[in-house]
Amino acid sequence: MFELRLVEGGLLKKILESLKDLVNDANFDCSATGFSLQAMDSSHVALVAFLLRAEGFDHYRCDRNLTMGMNLGNMAKMLKCAANDDIVTIKADDGTDTVTFMFENPSQDKIADFEMKLMDIDSEHLGIPEAEFEAIVRMPSAEYARICRDLSSIGDTVVISVSKEGVRFSTRGDIGTANIVCRQNTSVDNPEDATVIEMEKPVTQTFALKYMSSFAKATPLANQVTISMSSELPVVVEYKIAEVGYLSPYSLKTLNLSKKQSLKWSPYSLKSEFVEERKPKVEIEPETKSNGEADASVETKPESETNGEAEVMDVE
Amino acid sequence: MFELRLVEGGLLKKILESLKDLVNDANFDCSATGFSLQAMDSSHVALVAFLLRAEGFDHYRCDRNLTMGMNLGNMAKMLKCAANDDIVTIKADDGTDTVTFMFENPSQDKIADFEMKLMDIDSEHLGIPEAEFEAIVRMPSAEYARICRDLSSIGDTVVISVSKEGVRFSTRGDIGTANIVCRQNTSVDNPEDATVIEMEKPVTQTFALKYMSSFAKATPLANQVTISMSSELPVVVEYKIAEVGYLSPYSLKTLNLSKKQSLKWSPYSLKSEFVEERKPKVEIEPETKSNGEADASVETKPESETNGEAEVMDVE
Amino acid sequence: MFELRLVEGGLLKKILESLKDLVNDANFDCSATGFSLQAMDSSHVALVAFLLRAEGFDHYRCDRNLTMGMNLGNMAKMLKCAANDDIVTIKADDGTDTVTFMFENPSQDKIADFEMKLMDIDSEHLGIPEAEFEAIVRMPSAEYARICRDLSSIGDTVVISVSKEGVRFSTRGDIGTANIVCRQNTSVDNPEDATVIEMEKPVTQTFALKYMSSFAKATPLANQVTISMSSELPVVVEYKIAEVGYLSPYSLKTLNLSKKQSLKWSPYSLKSEFVEERKPKVEIEPETKSNGEADASVETKPESETNGEAEVMDVE
Repeated sequence: MFELRLVEGGLLKKILESLKDLVNDANFDCSATGFSLQAMDSSHVALVAFLLRAEGFDHYRCDRNLTMGMNLGNMAKMLKCAANDDIVTIKADDGTDTVTFMFENPSQDKIADFEMKLMDIDSEHLGIPEAEFEAIVRMPSAEYARICRDLSSIGDTVVISVSKEGVRFSTRGDIGTANIVCRQNTSVDNPEDATVIEMEKPVTQTFALKYMSSFAKATPLANQVTISMSSELPVVVEYKIAEVGYLSPYSLKTLNLSKKQSLKWSPYSLKSEFVEERKPKVEIEPETKSNGEADASVETKPESETNGEAEVMDVE
Repeated sequence: MFELRLVEGGLLKKILESLKDLVNDANFDCSATGFSLQAMDSSHVALVAFLLRAEGFDHYRCDRNLTMGMNLGNMAKMLKCAANDDIVTIKADDGTDTVTFMFENPSQDKIADFEMKLMDIDSEHLGIPEAEFEAIVRMPSAEYARICRDLSSIGDTVVISVSKEGVRFSTRGDIGTANIVCRQNTSVDNPEDATVIEMEKPVTQTFALKYMSSFAKATPLANQVTISMSSELPVVVEYKIAEVGYLSPYSLKTLNLSKKQSLKWSPYSLKSEFVEERKPKVEIEPETKSNGEADASVETKPESETNGEAEVMDVE
Repeated sequence: MFELRLVEGGLLKKILESLKDLVNDANFDCSATGFSLQAMDSSHVALVAFLLRAEGFDHYRCDRNLTMGMNLGNMAKMLKCAANDDIVTIKADDGTDTVTFMFENPSQDKIADFEMKLMDIDSEHLGIPEAEFEAIVRMPSAEYARICRDLSSIGDTVVISVSKEGVRFSTRGDIGTANIVCRQNTSVDNPEDATVIEMEKPVTQTFALKYMSSFAKATPLANQVTISMSSELPVVVEYKIAEVGYLSPYSLKTLNLSKKQSLKWSPYSLKSEFVEERKPKVEIEPETKSNGEADASVETKPESETNGEAEVMDVE
């Protein structure tokens, strides 16, 4: 028996809306730790991960670990039927192949339940190698979303350069070039408007704007976004979810990550190549420990499955 | 000479917006009683009727009964040119084949008149048999509209079941099932938020969501909707229009009705069959008495005209 | 070196949005007087002109006259990346073939610069003949936009008739006819709501609604629009831009004008024919004096270039 309840159901709606265009089908993992997901997008370029900790829910019960494969588009359709102030309950009985979403309105005179068949989805947990990022930028998430939107009207890729002065986003297209510089700014009335740069050494990386813009769909979840970069590592774009009244902050991470032992994600070109396995030492964040069951013997994905990447390789 | 004037012209705009997707061409009947319409949708599944009583208008003059055939799409286009606070006048001279819509803004410095050719439309008035409904649900119209929208994202038909506890709307589709229960709730601050069930015996009926959603287009007209059901009768979805400052409430009814003597509308399957004439005893509501002129000798529509129904018969 | 700066950058965004659908490529003229543009739409029916006077800018420097050919769609794309409260700077160095747009947010922690290649565009300055208009209508620009929109749902052309009582806009289409009369009205609380008619003699002219609606895209620029008409002249639709805090009002004129010496614009039919050159005596407004350099020896456009007009000639 698995059951979770969230008084502010709108949060789950927003999470699904931010995920459904990036990932089609994915396994949700339910454990004593919380409700989590880790999945690669269909072209195997981006890795999406989120964890909602058990303590954050108004009610959370998980008798034994459970993996629920769902189509995120269908799940989003069902969650869209919840009003933002509905109490949302997700439950699954042991041994059944269905999941139930229940929505109760605050006055309790309207109760909806939606039942969806679960799917068997082949997936593997990726261990995320411990990373010491060379540069971490924290900035208003709406600003990041706006920059992605603006640059997308000019070009296809974005060069992100972090230096002491600030972070520069650049692109180039048929109609011209664009550079947007955000300077460190901590003297703001509201800490959520701050732009903070933590840097060991300057980093410059190039990404497909298509993905960077996709990540910005999580903007409604948090007022700040954190962009972590190292010259040898994929970029990590992270939205922390901290709702008033919850014991612990939720955290949704949208990661551009190397696929352990199979894909080395080269951030400069978005080209992927098969490489030797790198055994992860520790998880990138304590709350993803439950993902540790990803074993080291998983097979390399056949090349035919990575065809989707072709469309993002035409980067100059 | 026929002339009516309404100070709050926005009302006529809203009525047309709610009708135009369901009915293409229709006859408007002008009599001493009021301005009314009764028409079947193009697939002969739903019957739409409304009456705006003469007393409700700021000015109403009807020298002799008049039938004005109009294309509702074109009429809606013209009414859309009225601002919501414009005074709307509709007039037609005897013996002409045109109707004039006049819009005056409150400061009287802008006056628009639109002239439209009338059409000859073959139609017959259907007598609506007296009905004692087994269950009548009154609920917020926005709630009804939202339920239709939500269920339409999952399936094609809706099962409506009324019991003492409340009304249940259910659907089933490829991605799963959905049940929405609205409980009786009269302890609300605003009577327009109430959900009230009047029931002689439980009723369960199945309808095409396409039509139930179409009816919800009338939501801007009234804060409450009444759904009247009997196991042997078509469902009646009714929006009462009661504007402050008018002597009598308007009433717009969107009815799913048996076509007198020609179509028996079987609500469980949305399948139609030809049946014997049933002579109506009384009109369903006093204000529709003017429709009594529908005579009993009208012919059964040829089958070819009811082909449109095929598209709503594929109900499980 | 050319450089202009505008603290309220949103103004430039609005100007581009109002122009880009009417004109594809155009030359911007930078001189000591100001920043101006004069261009015909692609079907050579309408002439668009605007001048932003040097005094109106927060900073304006123009070492020598400069013509910058730009694609207005691309320029609009770049300006869209400016927030409405950004400070916008446009600059071009002498001898380069690029223009730079710079956007700084009010807190100065975000600076964007966009660079665009300039184009070589063949164009000629048209001298605008001095005109004594027979009738000038000044009315709320939103009202004018709404009338264009409403009539466009009925017909393709509009007949504008100015008389002492007011201005009448009429159209006729398949579904019927429409007449909208706006009466002179100066007894309003806000002068921007006034409709004022100045008239020497009544004028009636016919125009393509497509163009009259295009002009209405400038509505966000000014609360009032001025429509100037003479039976022998093209209509002039003008939006005056007067922003608080600027020394002199900007003026954007959207003109339907005869092309000097090549096109006579016949307002009744929108048909164009080649005519003898008419030497302009004076400019229509003092601020367009810089356009005087249009010389009298420019060649008549070959007929093949005016094919685009065919689409607006099917006027009844």
